[in-house]
Amino acid sequence: MNPIAPHAPTAADVLAAAQRLQGVAHRTPVLRSGMADQLLGAQLYFKCESLQRTGSFKFRGAYNALAQLGDAARERGALTFSAGNHAQALALAGRLLDAPTLVLMPEDGSASKMAATRQYGAQVVTYNRYTEDREALSRQLAQQRGMTLIAPSEHPQVIAGQGTAALELLQEVPRLDYLFVPVGGGGLLAGSLLAAQALGSACQLYGVEPETANDAQQSLRSGTLVRIDNPRTIADGAQANSLGPLTFEPIRSLAQGITTSSDLQLMQALRFMAERMKIVVEPTGALAFAGAQHGGVDIRGKRVGIIISGGNVDLPRYARFLAD
Amino acid sequence: MNPIAPHAPTAADVLAAAQRLQGVAHRTPVLRSGMADQLLGAQLYFKCESLQRTGSFKFRGAYNALAQLGDAARERGALTFSAGNHAQALALAGRLLDAPTLVLMPEDGSASKMAATRQYGAQVVTYNRYTEDREALSRQLAQQRGMTLIAPSEHPQVIAGQGTAALELLQEVPRLDYLFVPVGGGGLLAGSLLAAQALGSACQLYGVEPETANDAQQSLRSGTLVRIDNPRTIADGAQANSLGPLTFEPIRSLAQGITTSSDLQLMQALRFMAERMKIVVEPTGALAFAGAQHGGVDIRGKRVGIIISGGNVDLPRYARFLAD
Repeated sequence: MNPIAPHAPTAADVLAAAQRLQGVAHRTPVLRSGMADQLLGAQLYFKCESLQRTGSFKFRGAYNALAQLGDAARERGALTFSAGNHAQALALAGRLLDAPTLVLMPEDGSASKMAATRQYGAQVVTYNRYTEDREALSRQLAQQRGMTLIAPSEHPQVIAGQGTAALELLQEVPRLDYLFVPVGGGGLLAGSLLAAQALGSACQLYGVEPETANDAQQSLRSGTLVRIDNPRTIADGAQANSLGPLTFEPIRSLAQGITTSSDLQLMQALRFMAERMKIVVEPTGALAFAGAQHGGVDIRGKRVGIIISGGNVDLPRYARFLAD
Repeated sequence: MNPIAPHAPTAADVLAAAQRLQGVAHRTPVLRSGMADQLLGAQLYFKCESLQRTGSFKFRGAYNALAQLGDAARERGALTFSAGNHAQALALAGRLLDAPTLVLMPEDGSASKMAATRQYGAQVVTYNRYTEDREALSRQLAQQRGMTLIAPSEHPQVIAGQGTAALELLQEVPRLDYLFVPVGGGGLLAGSLLAAQALGSACQLYGVEPETANDAQQSLRSGTLVRIDNPRTIADGAQANSLGPLTFEPIRSLAQGITTSSDLQLMQALRFMAERMKIVVEPTGALAFAGAQHGGVDIRGKRVGIIISGGNVDLPRYARFLAD
């Protein structure tokens, strides 16, 4: 019935990924904030993947996937499609593992993200996102060049790698009641659920999406994959159109629920994190905090984990967010 | 010859302060940045006191000093003069130790810092910094109200408390070759020097000042306290007019040197830290990084500690820094 079952990521894959990433990925700090605790009436533990290498959790999954290619495949290299964090992540993983990398990026995307991706060592190929299908294009390029496609979320070893952030948090902070996790393509939430499973944790995990991009919430409710095309939100890292079969399976079976945040709430969370917590967070990175605050889950008096997924935002855009 | 000698802070005071602050102050993270390492050609270890309670290292010294008052003195409370970080630090220390606090702040100072100081629980009294002498005023208020004056830098237990940041860094990162420390009133550098002494560390410590406010550099060169009135710099936390006898003694005898940074270099460092390291740093907080980069010390290939002193900067001002 399920053709992808043999490749579905498992709790054991997350533990193996943690071994693989030891000494390669940063063990990111868990920050506390008295002000945030006061605001939400709970004890909050912020896992700061904004302080991860390349500025987001994506490095964990990209490295974990690339490291498992055989020598010949690694020499031919890997490619992916990504407008942002996965691009830089794969580029750095390639540099560290001595594998060529190629990233398909939209031609109207962020110039600074393109520059950063090149700086980490990837070849960047641009495409027109209104007229071209990036997934077809990347399959075609992969075939032409003999490169391996490492998709941003829908890849078992990417999902396993992303789970190591929650694994570290759950190991470092005992007895968390809740954990809030941003949802774009769903790799981070799927991996986090497998991490909790690996530890036999009783912690309840919630995904958080922008309210205009709540395809995962709708999918969870309906039991089938719902797609939302080109959702409008400032959380550019959470604009994925839908989950895929690999990410949906653990989310469907293990997540407590999916909640949402408005762009205004996201913006307030982002500003709070700059002003009170002194950290630069991209809009998508503020999703879990905003969702914990406004998502309707009663967390008062509880021990609550928050995954800050990333901090990659163009400086002029970030400056406008703060000045508004 | 030296009337303050009996009260001069010692290496043992720093170790005692570390005990006192255990579980009260945050053990702040030490961040790495591949980009920064590349830029400076060294291995950098950033001790992030911007992520300390109240947003700066000042909480360490304020708490350490206030915690050592006897019961009666603590009930009468403590006061200080500060336009910024020491104000919030003493206010929070007072709330935690159940001691009333009063802070003299310039009437034309930052509204948000005044608000934060009040929010932490201190009474704020304003004065005109062009016509009134804040030190005389605070002595007068202390006498009237029976409160104890806890000066921002020139206080042995404040200095000892500030030293615990470097102590943590030197304990966590073995064999540092250099440590760069911002210098305003000199408490952080003096305490850091005593911390290195306490550990018998061979690490060489440098202070960093704004080039327009290099009174400590001039003092170190001339061997006597040099005063610079109202220096102009964006590093508002380093505008202290001079060191005092208590801070000068360890700096004179133990510091490797004092180097400087221009405002433009500071601004570039602050922007780099936002864009590449994802942390919000106030201008003074960027001093050590800028000094390590531009201060003329040959750090290539070395292991270098950088103390980021704080992250308290009004959001609109910070947004202008990033947008420029």
